[in-house]
Amino acid sequence: MAESNPSPIQVRITAPGGPEVLVAEPAAVPTPAAGDVLIRVRAAGVNRHDCGQRARGPSTAHSDIPGLEVAGEVAAVGAGVSRYRPGDRVCALTSGGGYATFALARAGQTLPIPDGVSDVEAAGLPEAAFTIGFNLFVLGRLAAGESVLLHGGTSGVGSLAIQLLTALGHPVHVTCGTADKCAIARRLGAVQAIDYHDATMVEQVLEATGGRGIDLILDMSGGRHTRANIAMMAKRARLMHLSPGGGKAIEVPLRELMAREGIISGSLLRPQPDSEKAKLAVWVEQTVWPLVPARVRPVIHATLPLARSDRAHALLETGDVVGKLILLPE
Amino acid sequence: MAESNPSPIQVRITAPGGPEVLVAEPAAVPTPAAGDVLIRVRAAGVNRHDCGQRARGPSTAHSDIPGLEVAGEVAAVGAGVSRYRPGDRVCALTSGGGYATFALARAGQTLPIPDGVSDVEAAGLPEAAFTIGFNLFVLGRLAAGESVLLHGGTSGVGSLAIQLLTALGHPVHVTCGTADKCAIARRLGAVQAIDYHDATMVEQVLEATGGRGIDLILDMSGGRHTRANIAMMAKRARLMHLSPGGGKAIEVPLRELMAREGIISGSLLRPQPDSEKAKLAVWVEQTVWPLVPARVRPVIHATLPLARSDRAHALLETGDVVGKLILLPE
Repeated sequence: MAESNPSPIQVRITAPGGPEVLVAEPAAVPTPAAGDVLIRVRAAGVNRHDCGQRARGPSTAHSDIPGLEVAGEVAAVGAGVSRYRPGDRVCALTSGGGYATFALARAGQTLPIPDGVSDVEAAGLPEAAFTIGFNLFVLGRLAAGESVLLHGGTSGVGSLAIQLLTALGHPVHVTCGTADKCAIARRLGAVQAIDYHDATMVEQVLEATGGRGIDLILDMSGGRHTRANIAMMAKRARLMHLSPGGGKAIEVPLRELMAREGIISGSLLRPQPDSEKAKLAVWVEQTVWPLVPARVRPVIHATLPLARSDRAHALLETGDVVGKLILLPE
Repeated sequence: MAESNPSPIQVRITAPGGPEVLVAEPAAVPTPAAGDVLIRVRAAGVNRHDCGQRARGPSTAHSDIPGLEVAGEVAAVGAGVSRYRPGDRVCALTSGGGYATFALARAGQTLPIPDGVSDVEAAGLPEAAFTIGFNLFVLGRLAAGESVLLHGGTSGVGSLAIQLLTALGHPVHVTCGTADKCAIARRLGAVQAIDYHDATMVEQVLEATGGRGIDLILDMSGGRHTRANIAMMAKRARLMHLSPGGGKAIEVPLRELMAREGIISGSLLRPQPDSEKAKLAVWVEQTVWPLVPARVRPVIHATLPLARSDRAHALLETGDVVGKLILLPE
């Protein structure tokens, strides 16, 4: 297994702070417990969540090795794991620990890599696909043909969601921070892409939907657009939040929400129990996988060496990343 | 039909203002259009909504005759109405016009009065029953055995909801403004009743639910308790608002909401289309009626002559009413 690199490494959060607190260091190879899959990581996805975890610093709640998604090759399996065997190409949602040469994942959160998908692409799928399934379909109960608006249309989640939801028959409206990103979102399939600095955003969306508004809004801005979101809601629309926006309160105009019978909600994926994540994995395999790569393909902004995860964090925090940043252990 | 009173009257909102703008005046007997039932009103319910409509004054949106629920006797029916005939005892949700000797209701929002229920009691049922069905069951998707917290436990809606939800197997927690009202709420079946001025309200509710929190919270306070409501939410709880609280915004702590995957929503009953109200009527007849009056009985605070609806409004606005105020046309 260690043919290509005899010295496994990992990246550790050494203190609360900026990207410089991420330190690459030699790592032991973990032993898979019952139900675990040990993955030799060929590519690891970088997420906003990792930046937040790094800024907060080491914690007793989580591994100090960040990283919520990996792709690679099965190195070993724990007791009770019958689906995978060493050498299988897999990707997985991990509960931290992805920034490493070897990572553990629960077998129920591990999926075979679809044919025609590279390790780099596969590493960009789990976090976005599980997040979309959980927020739009499980919690948001998105129904056939309903429209969706995504704030942050060219983020990792956004760029995958545009393609996936379009393929599933949902009209996708997005907002982005620049005209260039709007153009990319349109190329990915968005029926409408608006610069969210545009003061006529709400009117444009209402016009594009014949006055009806949007059925489900996915907000990654932490509540930056609350009033506009509610003004764009169709009857019984859902406004789902993916980012708590630093813990601030959002101001909700109650009468406007009630007049629409709108729903405001949100979720955090990482604290979900294994049972919930395993159900999402089934949804991903049944609903997303058949569309990958022909209709849905992760947008890769750049790959960087695992040892330079600090640069990846700095880059992600500029806000100029379109799609995913992927770390390569070797 | 006019045997007991040859001169029908109605109460009209003559200007925006206090109870004094309600003026009783002679009325014509309306003619039922297709699908309408003309009801000779024996009792008419008074609702908070009526006070708000009166304060806002005459409007092109609604009849200037307030009143959203009546009980009485069918006087005539419009074309296509086969279920009811003159003389039948009925109660109905009305779209205004209830403060009158004769009122029109849609046949689909008219229900037979259950055996053993007086006209006065029957007039206190429609608005509360439709509101509970819509917010807790249709929008709030209340599931078997889930717990409910009602702010305003001894209001018209609250006092009926305690009995109905208890009879349907839901543990009902309430808050009220005084110890006396708490005692009444407990007698109606609440498993817990707390003075909402008590600073330990949240802790008491969490303790009573074994730390789990509440599955569905019904808020009639217009957002007065938002932070406490979210702190009391169980996983995937719903917080449903019945009152827009004067149109103010509510402050929602986003991270706390997301950590619970909680839902914030609400609704306005009056603007619902007839089709929605007709579906609710079916729910009321199937779910509520079999429990009336043995398990569920409207709490009547007082009856007043229709011509003194100004006194009813003044009384309701003191906040000291427990249950329903009912107006009697004769």
